[in-house]
Amino acid sequence: MNLEIAYAERVRRLTGSVARDILSRAQDRQIVSLAGGLPDPALWEGIELPSVSRECFQYGPSEGERALRELLADGLALRGVAASAANVLVTTGSQQGLDLAAKLLISPGAPVAVEAPTYLAALQVFELFEARPLPIPRGADGLDLGALASILATERPRLVYLNPTFQNPSGGCLDEAQRADIAALLDASGAVLLEDDPYRDLYYEAEPPPPICSMLTRAPWIHLSSTSKTLMPGLRVGCLACSPELYPNFVKLKQAADLHSDRLAQSIATSLLRDAAAQAARLARARALYRQKRDAMAAALASSFGARAHWEIPRGGMFFWLRLAERADLAAALELALAAGVAFMPGDPFFPPAAREPGRHVRLNFTRPSVEEIARAVPKVAAALERAGIGID
Amino acid sequence: MNLEIAYAERVRRLTGSVARDILSRAQDRQIVSLAGGLPDPALWEGIELPSVSRECFQYGPSEGERALRELLADGLALRGVAASAANVLVTTGSQQGLDLAAKLLISPGAPVAVEAPTYLAALQVFELFEARPLPIPRGADGLDLGALASILATERPRLVYLNPTFQNPSGGCLDEAQRADIAALLDASGAVLLEDDPYRDLYYEAEPPPPICSMLTRAPWIHLSSTSKTLMPGLRVGCLACSPELYPNFVKLKQAADLHSDRLAQSIATSLLRDAAAQAARLARARALYRQKRDAMAAALASSFGARAHWEIPRGGMFFWLRLAERADLAAALELALAAGVAFMPGDPFFPPAAREPGRHVRLNFTRPSVEEIARAVPKVAAALERAGIGID
Repeated sequence: MNLEIAYAERVRRLTGSVARDILSRAQDRQIVSLAGGLPDPALWEGIELPSVSRECFQYGPSEGERALRELLADGLALRGVAASAANVLVTTGSQQGLDLAAKLLISPGAPVAVEAPTYLAALQVFELFEARPLPIPRGADGLDLGALASILATERPRLVYLNPTFQNPSGGCLDEAQRADIAALLDASGAVLLEDDPYRDLYYEAEPPPPICSMLTRAPWIHLSSTSKTLMPGLRVGCLACSPELYPNFVKLKQAADLHSDRLAQSIATSLLRDAAAQAARLARARALYRQKRDAMAAALASSFGARAHWEIPRGGMFFWLRLAERADLAAALELALAAGVAFMPGDPFFPPAAREPGRHVRLNFTRPSVEEIARAVPKVAAALERAGIGID
Repeated sequence: MNLEIAYAERVRRLTGSVARDILSRAQDRQIVSLAGGLPDPALWEGIELPSVSRECFQYGPSEGERALRELLADGLALRGVAASAANVLVTTGSQQGLDLAAKLLISPGAPVAVEAPTYLAALQVFELFEARPLPIPRGADGLDLGALASILATERPRLVYLNPTFQNPSGGCLDEAQRADIAALLDASGAVLLEDDPYRDLYYEAEPPPPICSMLTRAPWIHLSSTSKTLMPGLRVGCLACSPELYPNFVKLKQAADLHSDRLAQSIATSLLRDAAAQAARLARARALYRQKRDAMAAALASSFGARAHWEIPRGGMFFWLRLAERADLAAALELALAAGVAFMPGDPFFPPAAREPGRHVRLNFTRPSVEEIARAVPKVAAALERAGIGID
């Protein structure tokens, strides 16, 4: 007989990732997955792994390798972010940046403003730390600034989490005027901006506007980026930059979390990023490849869904976000889709509980599948949703 | 003017690591450091980094690579631990295992039993999660079992954190009878055992007794180990094994913490560990080298300290632990030592506040410095402590 275990209170909030459960089923069954957010491995064909110095075998600094921090800071500074090696921390993937930010700012019951929809793994971290998520509607016109202003005034959230650029899941990109308005609202409030910015380099039309944190004059900020979308996710090299007053606490939190990130991966990332021409060429190739796939998915959606769903064509990032005309039983649809050899991501877990509208949203990834797979898979997703939608509304 | 930031309550508990501050100063000044817990880089001379498959560039499973989990589980099973790939999680260093265990079990105010002294970075994590640490005295005779029994009965801690084998900092190793007694006490209580076991392979006399978790029949357990001491710390490949009922929550917590650990590092660790003969040879070489250094430090201590301190000769691990005959101003002694070109680790932060006895303990590392450096540095540490001890007691 086992003894009863006294788990921490937060464990009651510990939800698994629907995404990963689906991804794991998709992998087992050799099906075409539009569910994840994976890069196309074709982009790695030209990459030769650089050799690493034996120095990397030893324990290293919690902040990360100095040379890498300088390179990452240079990249951010080009985008207007006030970053230098002195306020940049290398994280184990940008997911760790979410964990560290939650540790720094979220006590049980703390109000945290999030977009609705928002990145589901961020929502999971905030809920694990027992935050009270406050939804700010995000739609085709961008963020609902009136809702943000009202939440800032009435709820005084400690943290405002935004993914302004080619958002996961909606694909939307806030324009420069909206960013400036958000910056002004934040400057007037006591909240910290947590800006999650992993998709910025994956633009298929114009380059996106600068990060919101570059427009702040007063509010504290944290900016997360990653080499996962621009180099290789397997390296787990993420980047946290922040206002200088936050940095010393982040270094201590990083140390408590894992002492430091893998030094071999940091060394490899440094070598690859230092060759700016090669990195620019890789990004150009990624944009060309993903643009082609995005267009293939747009065509497939138009012919398979017609008026049964609404979507915008994303100008960057990795996802189409569908709003279904009628409610569908997404769990049933997913089973039907998997049986037909395809996977998609139900949209419900991307909403905080207060903003959930069950069965109305679907996220589809276009970066990992091939153009042919996209053309084959989208009609199957549409068919599964149609069958599962019957009788629901 | 900056706005006031509403930090999470836990941030008030966020202490920096004295260890890392000293290490960083020691590095700047090119001094001989007995302060850290670093492996000797000479052990890596024969290591050729294996090539990694391109598959590792992609996102991977939160649990870690299957092949690595099997290898790590096989190693644990040889020591009697009920481990298989199904209850082994690859962590970003074993430090992350401490973070995940704290997340799983520590709510604010939760009583956590710890040895006094104990590993200071574990204490930091528990305090960050607002635990109430309850000290169990650990001395030359091992752990105070009466104190453990009394704490289990009266305080009902959720978690009992032990480092039974060549403990950091004391160097002590609990014998088999003590381990069996501890296992029986835990089986009779509701507490979870968190057994931190990174030094097991670094034995210089007899092989240590099996882990305590292998002797449990009923109590839930978590076992942490690491490749940092047996391969390379820069890889950050740690291992968490646990009772099956805890495992699904750990996988979710790992996912929220950093999605997964670096796959290239996992692939390298897998290749290196899979060659069992080469790994056994590396460990034999480490034991021979460190035994020689330990003996050099024992000789230097005997001639420099004499009766001014008490210590045991460690039968494994990385540290000598000195109890000074009189109280010294350790901060002043450290400044004097640094000025003389050596660093040591003051013992105070290894004690939970309730058990602190300021100025009486010093930890000295013998694995990183050379035999010559040990002979040169120990008398300087003794001289600095003597000068700083004058007038204190």
